[in-house]
Amino acid sequence: MSLPQTAPAPPAVPAETAGAPTVAGLLKEISDVGRDRTRGGYSRPVFSTAETDLRIWFIERATRRGLDVHTDANGIIWAWWDTAAGVRKDAVATGSHLDSVPGGGEYDGPLGVASALVAVDLLKARNFRPRRPLAIAVFPEEEGSRFGIACLGSRLLTGELDPNKARNLRDPDGNTYADVAAANGQDPRFIGADYKALQQLGLFVELHVEQGRGLIDLDQPVAVGSSILGHGRWKLAISGEGNHAGTTLMQDRRDPMIAAAKVVVGIRETARKYRDARATVGRLQPVPGGTNVIASRVDLWIDVRHPEDSVTAALVEAIGLNAQVLAAEEGCSAALTRESLSPTVQFDDGLRDRLQQLLPAAPVLATGAGHDAGVLAAHLPTAMLFVRNPTGISHSPDELVEDRDAEAGALALADSLAGLLGGARTVG
Amino acid sequence: MSLPQTAPAPPAVPAETAGAPTVAGLLKEISDVGRDRTRGGYSRPVFSTAETDLRIWFIERATRRGLDVHTDANGIIWAWWDTAAGVRKDAVATGSHLDSVPGGGEYDGPLGVASALVAVDLLKARNFRPRRPLAIAVFPEEEGSRFGIACLGSRLLTGELDPNKARNLRDPDGNTYADVAAANGQDPRFIGADYKALQQLGLFVELHVEQGRGLIDLDQPVAVGSSILGHGRWKLAISGEGNHAGTTLMQDRRDPMIAAAKVVVGIRETARKYRDARATVGRLQPVPGGTNVIASRVDLWIDVRHPEDSVTAALVEAIGLNAQVLAAEEGCSAALTRESLSPTVQFDDGLRDRLQQLLPAAPVLATGAGHDAGVLAAHLPTAMLFVRNPTGISHSPDELVEDRDAEAGALALADSLAGLLGGARTVG
Repeated sequence: MSLPQTAPAPPAVPAETAGAPTVAGLLKEISDVGRDRTRGGYSRPVFSTAETDLRIWFIERATRRGLDVHTDANGIIWAWWDTAAGVRKDAVATGSHLDSVPGGGEYDGPLGVASALVAVDLLKARNFRPRRPLAIAVFPEEEGSRFGIACLGSRLLTGELDPNKARNLRDPDGNTYADVAAANGQDPRFIGADYKALQQLGLFVELHVEQGRGLIDLDQPVAVGSSILGHGRWKLAISGEGNHAGTTLMQDRRDPMIAAAKVVVGIRETARKYRDARATVGRLQPVPGGTNVIASRVDLWIDVRHPEDSVTAALVEAIGLNAQVLAAEEGCSAALTRESLSPTVQFDDGLRDRLQQLLPAAPVLATGAGHDAGVLAAHLPTAMLFVRNPTGISHSPDELVEDRDAEAGALALADSLAGLLGGARTVG
Repeated sequence: MSLPQTAPAPPAVPAETAGAPTVAGLLKEISDVGRDRTRGGYSRPVFSTAETDLRIWFIERATRRGLDVHTDANGIIWAWWDTAAGVRKDAVATGSHLDSVPGGGEYDGPLGVASALVAVDLLKARNFRPRRPLAIAVFPEEEGSRFGIACLGSRLLTGELDPNKARNLRDPDGNTYADVAAANGQDPRFIGADYKALQQLGLFVELHVEQGRGLIDLDQPVAVGSSILGHGRWKLAISGEGNHAGTTLMQDRRDPMIAAAKVVVGIRETARKYRDARATVGRLQPVPGGTNVIASRVDLWIDVRHPEDSVTAALVEAIGLNAQVLAAEEGCSAALTRESLSPTVQFDDGLRDRLQQLLPAAPVLATGAGHDAGVLAAHLPTAMLFVRNPTGISHSPDELVEDRDAEAGALALADSLAGLLGGARTVG
């Protein structure tokens, strides 16, 4: 990680911040951290060296801005801009995450974190004095790439995830969350619901790169979010009989890879029968996974999303039944287990209306992607801002945000926070 | 690894070795090394801690027997029982490998190594004085589990694998063979054909657990090998468009996982059209491999075997053409590359006849599995002995050899070596 003292010249910066860090400049500081030479893009799983480096980077950058930073028992980093009164109540919170999917893009997560830092710079450059405290939050394991449950940090914070279940989650190498957390200096005994922390917050606004093509079509750099599509993850384990690939006749096999392949095709066909449904198999692991070995088991993970939660349930049931039939055809068995389920989230109407007033040019968009803002929405008024992604592609190295749009996003966030914080521009 | 000084009591040991180590006892010494808690069985890839521990174990056990041990530039361990003349020429070689497939069984490889040590014990207990030198060889990366090419050690030794190609092979983490070898104290500059070493050998006999059901049906503990089915490995890379699983509509996708699934089913259907053909997909990796990510690429490996090499070629061609069509249906592309190809091997007729004379009860069996003996067969007379596997399953934790059969195998190997070495039982 290089931490250059001088950021590159930004393309379009308001005069109020000439010479100050830009979103593009902040992201450039971490552009070497966690690059994935095999997959392309970035792999920054929670508790990896890369993600730890990013956390250190954020703490340093927030501290440099005079924010009061601490990491809580769930691994969430909080950076506070307190009011003169010093009371942490009814705070306006913003932020996002720094972990990534394997081979993910540069902006998914870090854009919201960097924009929050720049928004603070913009407000300070305006000599803005907030009447409510501001908190920047960085949530761990938002992607669920390592332990399988997305938004792990916010689910622990809000009590939506049982701490015992979290402690026993395993990463692909078989290590438990508890062991990995302990090895990284966190005490896993103290994870779980933190209502005291939640009670300090009045609302939460998350800025995020758009993960679709809405803003391309609308020709706008920034949108206000309306809702998050309900989504869940299921694991399907198909068991057959492992054996030698050379010595076992084709007719003597009970090969779970054949069953899994039929199931993958079947999932797509089933999903297509439900309007607006999305079902994806992006992760699949044969066990043991040797070239000259007929697998004994194939594990695959199914990501299912639909605006209506009842349709998601029906779709998953159909997938499970179909998998059992297809597995039986191959002399195999199939077991489906739910790893997570998040109902469709409608963001707070009042907060959304207020953001629309503050950002009159911004259209309103729904998203199919899950976010910590969606988890927090059950506990406090929550909203999102999306920044245009000219490729429309996310969770991929092809994800993109133009520098100009990144700065427009930070400015929109600053204007939103200024309105919500109810502060005043004072004479410096 | 525990190295107990006392082996457990064997079930059926000839009087000549009462109290001496047994095959079961030797295997028990390494039964904790490289256990795979996730997959079951053993994972002992080349250069892993487990495989290194096994090499150290073998060197210690061979040295304890008075053998002269050294590791050559290709990582092959040689343990010599020299004649009084001390000339290493026209040697009788035996041995096998210590690496395993991921989640493999206890016997595939180590049975041959342990049996060679016990055969030496049996010959010494007979006060046998060989007229030709004996060498026990332990070949690295027989399974090709780490760097993708099976029998890597013997292919390097015989010059069948270009050293430059070997140095640039990569393991699943992206590390090159050259880097991993260097990190493990081997100088990768010096790998490659070693005709001087080959010229020391007169013949090679490999004892191996049977990887099929032949000896179960024949109700015999030991067989003499006749041939190895021709086999090869091909890698198929199917490229599509990586994207977000939640925000990308089903109809907007170019998902290589769907194409790969159709290809996997297609490979089985194609293989079934060719009598005696076997085609297997046991390894498949979506890239990047996140649950909430539509893959950008899926890599899968195809193991193809047939007694006639022309049929193998035709089958692979059909698989490749079919994959291109199925990939195109999904807006994806498919690229097939060959990783290795071993023609069908007929073992040396004269050596096989001699073994049948020495082991009159042993039937003759062909095998579908590849072995270092198959690679060496192009360079010197080569033979194999197979030991009964009561499950018929291999490359799996279910692989099994009964203790009684293991000792019968070592005895058969000792009798074979005694006959081939042309030595005499002397008065002690």
